Amino acid sequence: MNYKMVAYLLGRILIIMGCLMCLPTVIALVLHENTSFGFVLSVVLQLLLGGICTMKKPEHREIYAKEGFVIVAGVWMLTSLFGAIPFYASREIPSFVDAFFEMVSGFTTTGASILNDIESLSYSTLFWRSFSHWIGGMGVLVFVMAVLPKEHVSQSIHIMRAEVPGPQAGKLVARMRGTARILYGIYIAVTLVEVGCLMLAGLPFFDSLLNSFSTAGTGGFAIKNASIAAYDSVAVDVIITVFMALFGINFSLFYLLLTKNFVQVFKDEELRWYIGIVLVSMLVVGINIMPQYQNFFEALRYSAFQVVSIVTTTGFITADYTKWPMLSQTILMLLLFMGACAGSTGGGFKVSRLIILCKSSVSEVRRQLRPRTVAPVRLGGKILDEKVVGSVLAYLCIYIVVFIISHLLLSLDTFSYATNFAAVATCINNVGPGLEAVGPVNNFSGFSAFSKLVLSFDMLAGRLELVPMVVLFAPSTWKRR
Amino acid sequence: MNYKMVAYLLGRILIIMGCLMCLPTVIALVLHENTSFGFVLSVVLQLLLGGICTMKKPEHREIYAKEGFVIVAGVWMLTSLFGAIPFYASREIPSFVDAFFEMVSGFTTTGASILNDIESLSYSTLFWRSFSHWIGGMGVLVFVMAVLPKEHVSQSIHIMRAEVPGPQAGKLVARMRGTARILYGIYIAVTLVEVGCLMLAGLPFFDSLLNSFSTAGTGGFAIKNASIAAYDSVAVDVIITVFMALFGINFSLFYLLLTKNFVQVFKDEELRWYIGIVLVSMLVVGINIMPQYQNFFEALRYSAFQVVSIVTTTGFITADYTKWPMLSQTILMLLLFMGACAGSTGGGFKVSRLIILCKSSVSEVRRQLRPRTVAPVRLGGKILDEKVVGSVLAYLCIYIVVFIISHLLLSLDTFSYATNFAAVATCINNVGPGLEAVGPVNNFSGFSAFSKLVLSFDMLAGRLELVPMVVLFAPSTWKRR
Repeated sequence: MNYKMVAYLLGRILIIMGCLMCLPTVIALVLHENTSFGFVLSVVLQLLLGGICTMKKPEHREIYAKEGFVIVAGVWMLTSLFGAIPFYASREIPSFVDAFFEMVSGFTTTGASILNDIESLSYSTLFWRSFSHWIGGMGVLVFVMAVLPKEHVSQSIHIMRAEVPGPQAGKLVARMRGTARILYGIYIAVTLVEVGCLMLAGLPFFDSLLNSFSTAGTGGFAIKNASIAAYDSVAVDVIITVFMALFGINFSLFYLLLTKNFVQVFKDEELRWYIGIVLVSMLVVGINIMPQYQNFFEALRYSAFQVVSIVTTTGFITADYTKWPMLSQTILMLLLFMGACAGSTGGGFKVSRLIILCKSSVSEVRRQLRPRTVAPVRLGGKILDEKVVGSVLAYLCIYIVVFIISHLLLSLDTFSYATNFAAVATCINNVGPGLEAVGPVNNFSGFSAFSKLVLSFDMLAGRLELVPMVVLFAPSTWKRR
Repeated sequence: MNYKMVAYLLGRILIIMGCLMCLPTVIALVLHENTSFGFVLSVVLQLLLGGICTMKKPEHREIYAKEGFVIVAGVWMLTSLFGAIPFYASREIPSFVDAFFEMVSGFTTTGASILNDIESLSYSTLFWRSFSHWIGGMGVLVFVMAVLPKEHVSQSIHIMRAEVPGPQAGKLVARMRGTARILYGIYIAVTLVEVGCLMLAGLPFFDSLLNSFSTAGTGGFAIKNASIAAYDSVAVDVIITVFMALFGINFSLFYLLLTKNFVQVFKDEELRWYIGIVLVSMLVVGINIMPQYQNFFEALRYSAFQVVSIVTTTGFITADYTKWPMLSQTILMLLLFMGACAGSTGGGFKVSRLIILCKSSVSEVRRQLRPRTVAPVRLGGKILDEKVVGSVLAYLCIYIVVFIISHLLLSLDTFSYATNFAAVATCINNVGPGLEAVGPVNNFSGFSAFSKLVLSFDMLAGRLELVPMVVLFAPSTWKRR
């Protein structure tokens, strides 16, 4: 482990995060909110620590995969720690573990909250919660890459590899500053379009902006206690449904659209599956919940919103789905595990991984039936490298192991089996709401501090695609080179 | 598909199953029980159908993997259908779907019941239920192989491959009649020793025999409503705990013991993990439930019994574990998924598969950290073939897919999320009791007929290690050659 270089790069990123935090700080200062002290303190601490770490450039600047993982895990934890300071300092969240949980939930775009009354929060806090979704959605580090000076590009490869989601280093992986900038450009543009649409639908600017941040990052923090249901507007529901669905799509497809590669977009296998699964789920849930609503279209409005909200791992709420029939609840829980497309801001297992797993299972059954035939797994017409298949399967195993251990640790608490199961599931998949005691009208405040730390770990592990967080537990990681 | 040869072999097996059914028939006739008609009818039907199918030997006798899978799936379904006739004919189980479920549960050694009052059943029925565990435990077909004439040995390979559990065609796979006979010898001997032990502990011969059948097959059908708790005897608890644990061990290890290969037995990696996991679970659960019992030893008595009962997928009960703390319940649910050793009568995912998954995950993380190193997966010191690793991972995927579809279909019923989840889990892993509405003091009678058929499929899929049942849904299976 090249400790000096890790510290140096962490320092640089801290400075940038400190600058980003100036935005809510300005809001707090202008509105004379009692969060001002906390925000200023946090910004000063980040700049100070960042300054110390970056004072001297290390001599040996080589970093490898190991350092990349540690930096990624470190950035996300440090950012959450510093981000939690204003909540705690202003006593809006009196427990630091709670504040940390809330911030991890923000940056990992989970949207699970420990707050009972969101509407009593200050504007700066509300802004910071939603803004953290927006920063976290695209990846703290992708952002950093976009603004980092040129000379660091070579070192950034290992960091990017560890952070960019999805099983394949796909058509357009944000490996270079240029691409990172294009991605951020698309991200900003689509967010702004959503802000405009929501304002046209009658929402105030502040609400439009913050809900758009949450949608873009597929986060789910709302600024009303009743989440999006508070607006009770068909237009708002439809707009947010559409934009949630858009932010669940691989961003490289938007890039292809921009460059007028329409054919390639429509040939994208993951996109087709994603659209198919979402439409079928919407329809089945809509039919299933129809008796509880006035007509099929009303049922479809709520079913579409909830299905898209869960599958994109956003977690916005317009209906208490725990009152829906068990079939709908089970479908939502399955979508929660599946998640959105690779290369989107959504979490979960990712549609492409699911496709690879299904195809390799079918190929295995074929092999058992006709032992002498070779049936390679194909994705998008191309034969998949066995290493990709292997890494997806290993990902599944690590996922299961992390899930099991978290579930065991959570069972030390006092909640039911379904609550614990859904709590781990919703956190590791970065969704937000779960079932029973962590259902859409409840929150995570009832868990013990220990459980909250376990769930925070799960949120980070889920967002960072497991390996960076798991590697922290390997003794070999900490060996000095 | 070689339909003629499949029918011919199915016919031969039906005749043997008809002969085995003569045992409970004799009991029914001797005791003048009202099950007599049903048993006689079922025996006659099996012999008749078997006779018709085997009248003419087919000209083309080649069978391949596909036919093997279909024969295995066919035998288990036919046997369960004919086995259910006596229950239904005597009105002891008035619904045929219920009777079928009960019989599938018997042959697959699940032990999930739809009966509310077991003690009111006739002796012949009680015998048949427990005897079906004993037949199913070792595999209907392994038994058939042991008694089949020599000339069929070459054809039997494909059948055996489809039925013998575990990821590897291990050290001693029952591929030949000779080995099958040795395995059955061990099976009978250990069962008889248990009968003796239970009789010494004061149980009547009938109880000893039937409980030994259930233990040997790791089934779990009891002959008392309160399961093994009805005897309320420390000696009985300890004896059954020990024998359940023994029947969860790979039978080839007993063979090695017989041939005095002690070193190889103690070097067996799966056995070590199995013992380790069982001991740790016992201890943790024991400490966790201590406040509910008088002292640690009493707690350990119940924890040891339940842990071994669940991990070996037997499903006998001495305590209502749904009243235990959530940690213990979660541990039991995890053990339920894991199951016992490959090559034992136990169900579940199997310890060896778990080891292979864990090791290949660790190796994958290593590969991501140091992309240039090659880290092969080893089991018992030997490098595992990548094909074995691949097939284990594919097994996991198929397992998850079957689980998900079953869970969805079950959610059409009226039960809670945890109940449905546990019902699928306990059936696909051939355990028996689950959580909440399918907990140890409840049973499966509340489910709809459709749900019972889904769960019957899961029990068969779990017992036959998925592929034979999944293949039935592939159109290519039914193509005439």
